[in-house]
Amino acid sequence: MEVEGIVEAAGDNASKKAGENEEVGSMVAANGISAVMPGWFSEISPMWPGEAHSLKVEKVLFQGKSDYQNVMVFQSSTYGKVLILDGVIQCTERDECAYQEMITHLPLCSIPNPKKVLVIGGGDGGVLREVSRYSSVEKIDICEIDKMVIDVAKEFFPKMAVGYEDPRVNVHVGDGVAFLKNVPEGTYDAVIVDSSDPIGPAQELFEKPFFESVAKALRPGGVVCTQAESIWLHMHIIEDIVSACRQVFKGSVNYAWTSVPTYPSGVIGFMVCSTRGPTVDFQHPVYRVEEDEQSNKSLGPLKFYNSEIHSAAFCLPSFAKRAIGSKTN
Amino acid sequence: MEVEGIVEAAGDNASKKAGENEEVGSMVAANGISAVMPGWFSEISPMWPGEAHSLKVEKVLFQGKSDYQNVMVFQSSTYGKVLILDGVIQCTERDECAYQEMITHLPLCSIPNPKKVLVIGGGDGGVLREVSRYSSVEKIDICEIDKMVIDVAKEFFPKMAVGYEDPRVNVHVGDGVAFLKNVPEGTYDAVIVDSSDPIGPAQELFEKPFFESVAKALRPGGVVCTQAESIWLHMHIIEDIVSACRQVFKGSVNYAWTSVPTYPSGVIGFMVCSTRGPTVDFQHPVYRVEEDEQSNKSLGPLKFYNSEIHSAAFCLPSFAKRAIGSKTN
Repeated sequence: MEVEGIVEAAGDNASKKAGENEEVGSMVAANGISAVMPGWFSEISPMWPGEAHSLKVEKVLFQGKSDYQNVMVFQSSTYGKVLILDGVIQCTERDECAYQEMITHLPLCSIPNPKKVLVIGGGDGGVLREVSRYSSVEKIDICEIDKMVIDVAKEFFPKMAVGYEDPRVNVHVGDGVAFLKNVPEGTYDAVIVDSSDPIGPAQELFEKPFFESVAKALRPGGVVCTQAESIWLHMHIIEDIVSACRQVFKGSVNYAWTSVPTYPSGVIGFMVCSTRGPTVDFQHPVYRVEEDEQSNKSLGPLKFYNSEIHSAAFCLPSFAKRAIGSKTN
Repeated sequence: MEVEGIVEAAGDNASKKAGENEEVGSMVAANGISAVMPGWFSEISPMWPGEAHSLKVEKVLFQGKSDYQNVMVFQSSTYGKVLILDGVIQCTERDECAYQEMITHLPLCSIPNPKKVLVIGGGDGGVLREVSRYSSVEKIDICEIDKMVIDVAKEFFPKMAVGYEDPRVNVHVGDGVAFLKNVPEGTYDAVIVDSSDPIGPAQELFEKPFFESVAKALRPGGVVCTQAESIWLHMHIIEDIVSACRQVFKGSVNYAWTSVPTYPSGVIGFMVCSTRGPTVDFQHPVYRVEEDEQSNKSLGPLKFYNSEIHSAAFCLPSFAKRAIGSKTN
């Protein structure tokens, strides 16, 4: 019965999003239930038509509907616990390390001694966990729109939610766009935007006015890292993001990518930018967080990130270089 | 009807392979048909239990059973034509560039002026296409065990099978292991092993006696590149391959990886090794094939490979470095 619940949740979501892609909608709705494998969760979305990644479900642990989205947690048979928002995999215990470590350390290892960091989204706490590795950091603000995500992370994902235990963390539940409007100019050394896809509550986080608020909240030479989709699936979205960032961020504008098996096409990208001010050379990190003994002692060693993979993340396949390479600084 | 054919082909294969993993077998056999989404091809295997990648099928173009395996080609809705062997995706028109270009140019750009190249497996012709970009190459031998794969590629995948049109290509249909036994010592500058997974006909291609034959067939300082699974899924297999290669290849032994969306976990790895002789520094390519104007004129520019992504491919996540990093030279 629980598994059927999943099927409906995924189908419901896919139907809602299927405006742009009727085929997905009709496939899901054809026989009244979603066309997924019994006992499996299948990720179906018009964001990646014609393909689906499925994970075998051992047990559904949580299902709820917040003011913003459907929230689900299940125990998978081979990827540990999985967090789903609106039918889309956000993270699994098995591969969350790649995403959380890269989105955090790409910006923070690129500047010396970050002190004030803002996380937008990131309710699961994984980015907070990674930010807390820096002894230079004095203040970590997080603005997550959906309290249910925070509560669910604390209950089911203690290894990510451990980030909330750092006394430097201040939690703000609310809209990131509104939060930024009240931030005094030049407040942060780094802003990390850990958002879901640009359909649904996160849509504004991929648009120019939002990037302008981020730029204003950053000190001169401050850095931002924001989730920026897959070069295999969403080159047009990425081109738009790059174009908006080039207009807004007057320091450096770069695209990086990494492997996350449970994300569509198996990769995820990041926009990594800096504001006008001290030069930031993102491809050559200035700090080796993986050698921080104090951090390794309390949180354990990094699983994915290291300085070499930091630099490698900025090397793009030729098709992506041709599309966006000339647009980055 | 055609789509049901697919379901059976995949299910049949999954059942055959399920010896190590009864859950997969029982799931597939439970109701007599495979537990896949109607109208979709689902890749289910004990090699990656608990997850499945599915592609929407527009039309089945070919189904056959050769002496070695089940061969299927279908038109997918968003990945172009897809080649399936024994229920496992071998390549799709949309992302074959990543695999074919990396497995070929990682070894060939690492040595000056390769003249004689052997391809083992690679019946689809994509590796031949990439080898043919090198004007220094005088002779390209290919030994593919399954003639049906060659015929199917020539009929349905003209953009890969174009590799067979190069007059330097000599096709040998037969067992790669047997073929190598008759190769005079020191014949080749490079050997590329484009095999399927180590279950089924390709099993021997992952074992030490095979690597010894390859080493013998290579000139001093010659290079080999062989498909070597996913660091996310098969670290134990990779550790064994690395260990065997270290015993056999006395020059340099390296592991590289790249993104291929339709492969399990979205990545594939390569063992890239050299024999004793002139030093080969694989991380710093000596030739920039992407700048070969003659090759670009006839085959079009490379889609994926470039020198930067060549070097980046050798940068491993920390968990993989800890498992195999110390074992490479």
